Amino acid sequence: MDKQYKKVLSFGEDLGEAQQNILIIGGGLCGSLLALRLGQRGYRVSVYEMRPDIRKVNMDSGRSINLALSDRGNKAIKLVGIEDKIKALCVPMTGRMLHDRDGNTTFSAYSGREHEYINSISRADFNALLVNEAEKHKNVSFYFNRKCLSVDFEKTTALFKDYDSNTEFVEDADVIIATDGAGSALRKSYFLGRKFLFSYSQDYLTHGYKELHIPPAENGGYKTNKNALHIWGRDHFMLIALPNLNGSFTVTLFLSYDEGEYNFNNLTTKDRVIAFFGTYFEDALEMMPNLVDDFFKNPTSPLGTIRCSPWHYKGNTLLMGDAAHAIVPFYGQGMNASLEDIVEFDKALDAHVGHWETVFKRYEALRRKDTDAIADLAIDNFHEMKGHVNNDIFREKRTIEMALEKNFPNEYSSKYSLVTFNEHVGYREAMLRGRAQDKAILNMLADGELDLKNNLKSILEQVQKATEAVLEDDRIAQNMKH
Amino acid sequence: MDKQYKKVLSFGEDLGEAQQNILIIGGGLCGSLLALRLGQRGYRVSVYEMRPDIRKVNMDSGRSINLALSDRGNKAIKLVGIEDKIKALCVPMTGRMLHDRDGNTTFSAYSGREHEYINSISRADFNALLVNEAEKHKNVSFYFNRKCLSVDFEKTTALFKDYDSNTEFVEDADVIIATDGAGSALRKSYFLGRKFLFSYSQDYLTHGYKELHIPPAENGGYKTNKNALHIWGRDHFMLIALPNLNGSFTVTLFLSYDEGEYNFNNLTTKDRVIAFFGTYFEDALEMMPNLVDDFFKNPTSPLGTIRCSPWHYKGNTLLMGDAAHAIVPFYGQGMNASLEDIVEFDKALDAHVGHWETVFKRYEALRRKDTDAIADLAIDNFHEMKGHVNNDIFREKRTIEMALEKNFPNEYSSKYSLVTFNEHVGYREAMLRGRAQDKAILNMLADGELDLKNNLKSILEQVQKATEAVLEDDRIAQNMKH
Repeated sequence: MDKQYKKVLSFGEDLGEAQQNILIIGGGLCGSLLALRLGQRGYRVSVYEMRPDIRKVNMDSGRSINLALSDRGNKAIKLVGIEDKIKALCVPMTGRMLHDRDGNTTFSAYSGREHEYINSISRADFNALLVNEAEKHKNVSFYFNRKCLSVDFEKTTALFKDYDSNTEFVEDADVIIATDGAGSALRKSYFLGRKFLFSYSQDYLTHGYKELHIPPAENGGYKTNKNALHIWGRDHFMLIALPNLNGSFTVTLFLSYDEGEYNFNNLTTKDRVIAFFGTYFEDALEMMPNLVDDFFKNPTSPLGTIRCSPWHYKGNTLLMGDAAHAIVPFYGQGMNASLEDIVEFDKALDAHVGHWETVFKRYEALRRKDTDAIADLAIDNFHEMKGHVNNDIFREKRTIEMALEKNFPNEYSSKYSLVTFNEHVGYREAMLRGRAQDKAILNMLADGELDLKNNLKSILEQVQKATEAVLEDDRIAQNMKH
Repeated sequence: MDKQYKKVLSFGEDLGEAQQNILIIGGGLCGSLLALRLGQRGYRVSVYEMRPDIRKVNMDSGRSINLALSDRGNKAIKLVGIEDKIKALCVPMTGRMLHDRDGNTTFSAYSGREHEYINSISRADFNALLVNEAEKHKNVSFYFNRKCLSVDFEKTTALFKDYDSNTEFVEDADVIIATDGAGSALRKSYFLGRKFLFSYSQDYLTHGYKELHIPPAENGGYKTNKNALHIWGRDHFMLIALPNLNGSFTVTLFLSYDEGEYNFNNLTTKDRVIAFFGTYFEDALEMMPNLVDDFFKNPTSPLGTIRCSPWHYKGNTLLMGDAAHAIVPFYGQGMNASLEDIVEFDKALDAHVGHWETVFKRYEALRRKDTDAIADLAIDNFHEMKGHVNNDIFREKRTIEMALEKNFPNEYSSKYSLVTFNEHVGYREAMLRGRAQDKAILNMLADGELDLKNNLKSILEQVQKATEAVLEDDRIAQNMKH
C-alpha cells in the first residue's frame, strides 16, 4: 500500500464516504483509472464493461490500437502513483516525420525543449494494467460482458444485459458514473428522457478512418524511424503511423467518404487500393505487405465530435471521458483529456466531498470550457496536419517557434506545446493564447515584419507584444458581446 | 392570375415537372409560403399541418404571437407577389425604445437611413393570408389536424395521425419537404434512423421566455410609443414589447430558469411576480393590468438553437425553415431566415429543376453557411440586448454608426443593418463584415483613436481601413487553419 493510497483512504473514512456504492459504466481507460482512484479513496466501486476482459482476449479488432500519451494523461497517472509501470509500455515520439510524395522525409520536433515528447502506447496493454491496478483494491470489482442498456437517472439505477447468461438485470447504486465512450448509454438516456433541457451535439467530419499496419522488419527492428509520429499529409487526406513496442507501426488512413478521385466509397478493388497508395504513399506502401488484406478486413469508421450539457443529473449520475466529450484524434488528446478528467474530478471531490451534486456541478463548471476547447483544436489540427505541415509559411513559423522554445524554455511555448506539454494550463487558456500567438506570428511573417536575422531575444519580444495586442483586441470585442 | 404566376406556371409545364406530387409537412409560415411558391410553379402540392386551420380558431395559446418582418422576409414576399397584402398587416418599428429602471426612455433608430425599419406582424394573420393565397391555386391543398409521426426517407412516404378520425395513415409522394419546425418529425427520423452520418445539435440557453400582454389604452390607442420595439434590458434578464394593429403590445419576458434572485423557478406567487416587475420594470407593470393572470396562465418555454446536416436524403426528402435551423429570437431573424429559405430554394430549383438531389445539394451548399451564421448572431444579440444597449461604449459606437449610415447611405452599414436591411448580402458575409467593423470601432474607441470631432468622412475612412485590417488579419490566420 503506497503512501498516497493510505492518505486518501483515511480521508474517505473520516468523512464517512467510504461505504458508498459507486457504479461505473464502462471499463476502458477512463473508467478503469477512475475505478482505481475511487478505490484508493475508499469507495466501494463496481465497474460494468460490455466487452470481454481485455486481459484474456486478443483485441485485434481494427479499433484504434495505439494512442499518444502526453503530459495531461501522465498527470493522471502520477495522481494514482503508477508512472513507472506505464513508462515501460511507452515508445517516445519526439516529433513528426513528414513524408512527401517522393519519399523524402523531414523531421519536425514537437518542442524546442528536449525533455518534451509524446508517447505511443498500446490501448490494450494500458487498459489491462489499469484494471490490474484497480483490482488490487478489494473494494473495487470489475464485471465484463455486461452491456448497459439504459439508466434511470431519477432512481440511480442502470439496466444491463449480461452477455454470458443472455439475461437482463438492474443495478442500484448511490452514484452512477458513465465512462462508456462516444456511444454512452447514460447520455442516450439523458437525451431520450426529455426530463430536463439537455444540450447535445454530434458532428461528423466528411472523412472517415481505417487502421492499417506496418509489420516489424525481418530482423525484428523498425522499418522506419522509431521515435517519431509519421505523417503523409496530402492536403485532402493523410496517412499517419505510430510505433509499437514490438517493431511494428499502427497506421491510420484518414480519407473522405465520397469526395475526390480516391475515397472510401470508391476504393473497392485491390487494384484501386494499390494504385492509390502507389500514387500518394509509395514509401509507405513498400513497408505494408498486408495492405490489401488489412484494407478490406478492417472497418471504415466515422470521425465525430460529441458535446453535451449538463453532464450530470442532480447528485445521481455523471458523464465523464468520451461519454461527455468525444473528439477527433488529430491533436492526440482524446485519451489525455479523458484521463485529465480524473484529476479535475478528484479536485472537485477534495473540495466538496459528501455533496455529490456540488461535486458534479463544480467539476462540470471548471472542466467543460476546457473539453470544448480541445474539441475545436482537434478539428483545426486535422486541417493543419493534412496540409500546412507542408506549407512554407507554416514551416517558417515552426522554425521560429522551435528556436524560441529552445532558447527561452521558460518564456515561450507554441500552441502545440501549450496544449500538449503544459499540463498546468487548461485547454481553453492554451487555445486562446496559442491561437493569438499563431495569428500574431503569421501576420508578421505575411507583412514582412519579422526579420529572422534579428537576434532571438528581440524576436521573442516582438512576438510577445504582438500576441498581447491580438488578445487585447479580442478582449475588447468580446466584452461587448458578453 | 398575376404576371409572375403565369410565367412560372408555364415554366414548370415546359419542363414536365408540374405533375409531380410534393408533400409538405407543416403549414406554418415557411410551409405555406413554400406551398404558394411551388403552387405557382405548377407542382401538385399537399400540405399536412398538425394544428387546426388557423383561419377558423382562436390561437391565443401563449405562443409567440407577433414577429418582426424585415427585408429578407420581404424578399420572399415579393417573390410570390403579395407584398401589398402583407404591408396592410404590419406595424412599422423604426428603432428600439430603451426603458431604464427609473422609467426614462431613450430611442435608438435601427438605421441611419429613414426607409429602413422592421415590422411587427401577427403570426396568425400572416399565416392565414399565406394559406389563403396558396389555396387559390387549385393544385395546392391543405389538410389540418394531421400530425406527422415519422418519415420513411428511403421510400419517400410519411406516416400521419389524423386527429379528427383518430386514425393513422401513410402518404406517398415524389418529394417530401418538412417545414414542421424545431420539433420536426423528418429530422427526428433522420436522427433515429442511423442510416447515414447525421450531424445534429440542440443547444439551450439557461434562459426561458414567457409571453405577456399590454392591452390597448381606454381610448383604443397605444399605451406607449407605437413605432418601436420596446426593451427593458436588465443585464441578466429582459423584457421586450412589440406593437399589434389593435393598440395592444405583445410582451416577452426572457429570464433564467434557476439563477439570480428572481427566476422562473422561484417566481411562484402573485406577490413575488409583482415585486419582481415593480423592482425592475415599474413603467411596464403600470401598463399590464393582467400581468399576474397572464404570468401563471402562459407557459414558460425554452430557447434553443438547432443545427443539422445533411438537410436532405438523396432526392427524396428535405428539411427547410426551423426544421433545419431553429434559432433564438434575439435578432428578429428566425422567421425571416425561414422565408429567405424559399428564395434560395427557388434559385436552386431554377438552376437544376428536374434533378431533385442536385437541387437539394446545391440549396444546402449555398444556404447552410448563412443559417449557421444567423444562429451565432442571434445568440450574440441576446447578450447585447440584455446589457450593452445600456453601455457607454456601445452607445458611442451606435452614435458613430448612425451618423455614418445617415451621411454615407451607400458606403456604410452597421452589423445590424447588414443583417436586417441588406437582403442581398448573405448572413455569413454580414456576420464577418459586421463583427470586423464592431471590433475595429470598439478598439479604436477604447484606444482613444477615434476623434469624434473629426469630420465624418475621415471617420468613415478610418473605420473602413481598420475593418479591412481586422479582416485581413483573420484571413491570414484562417488560411493557416483551412
